[in-house]
Amino acid sequence: MSATPSTTIAVEGWETRKLPPQLTCRFTFNSYAQTRQFLDDLADLSESNGNYPNLHFAKDFVTVTIAAPDDGALNEAEAAFARQVNSLANRILQG
Amino acid sequence: MSATPSTTIAVEGWETRKLPPQLTCRFTFNSYAQTRQFLDDLADLSESNGNYPNLHFAKDFVTVTIAAPDDGALNEAEAAFARQVNSLANRILQG
Repeated sequence: MSATPSTTIAVEGWETRKLPPQLTCRFTFNSYAQTRQFLDDLADLSESNGNYPNLHFAKDFVTVTIAAPDDGALNEAEAAFARQVNSLANRILQG
Repeated sequence: MSATPSTTIAVEGWETRKLPPQLTCRFTFNSYAQTRQFLDDLADLSESNGNYPNLHFAKDFVTVTIAAPDDGALNEAEAAFARQVNSLANRILQG
């Protein structure tokens, strides 16, 4: 049985999902107040920017995951957004 | 700012994740007993086959997600496994 390339794999009743690449980073904070501040700032950034990353967080950390847009590739827009997220976190951590 | 292809996107401190394509299917059962039987049979199949799909289930359904192997492409091996999973489910549903 020879290997078949991904694009032709089809099993009736099953869906083939191609997930876009992601940029992901975990930010650790010193307090829940800092975590909340980061989430608030990130919400503002998302609204002004139109990029709503996937967030996973608990008391003292937030993991931010930015998916590639529909074209399936990470572009400079995602990298620029990631750098803005870094800036938000740094501003909070440096008080 | 021009778009940069995915392979060159790098932001310091951020990890680039390329998720493999997936085959996914939701199986609905008539009782929790059927669901458990399917999960048991699937566990046996996984052990004999070495393919451990991602499972999400509740009382009367199981969603099975088969990821591509490390080479990043879905191959006939994954399709064959999906068909075996179909057979398990059909056997249970047909009592």
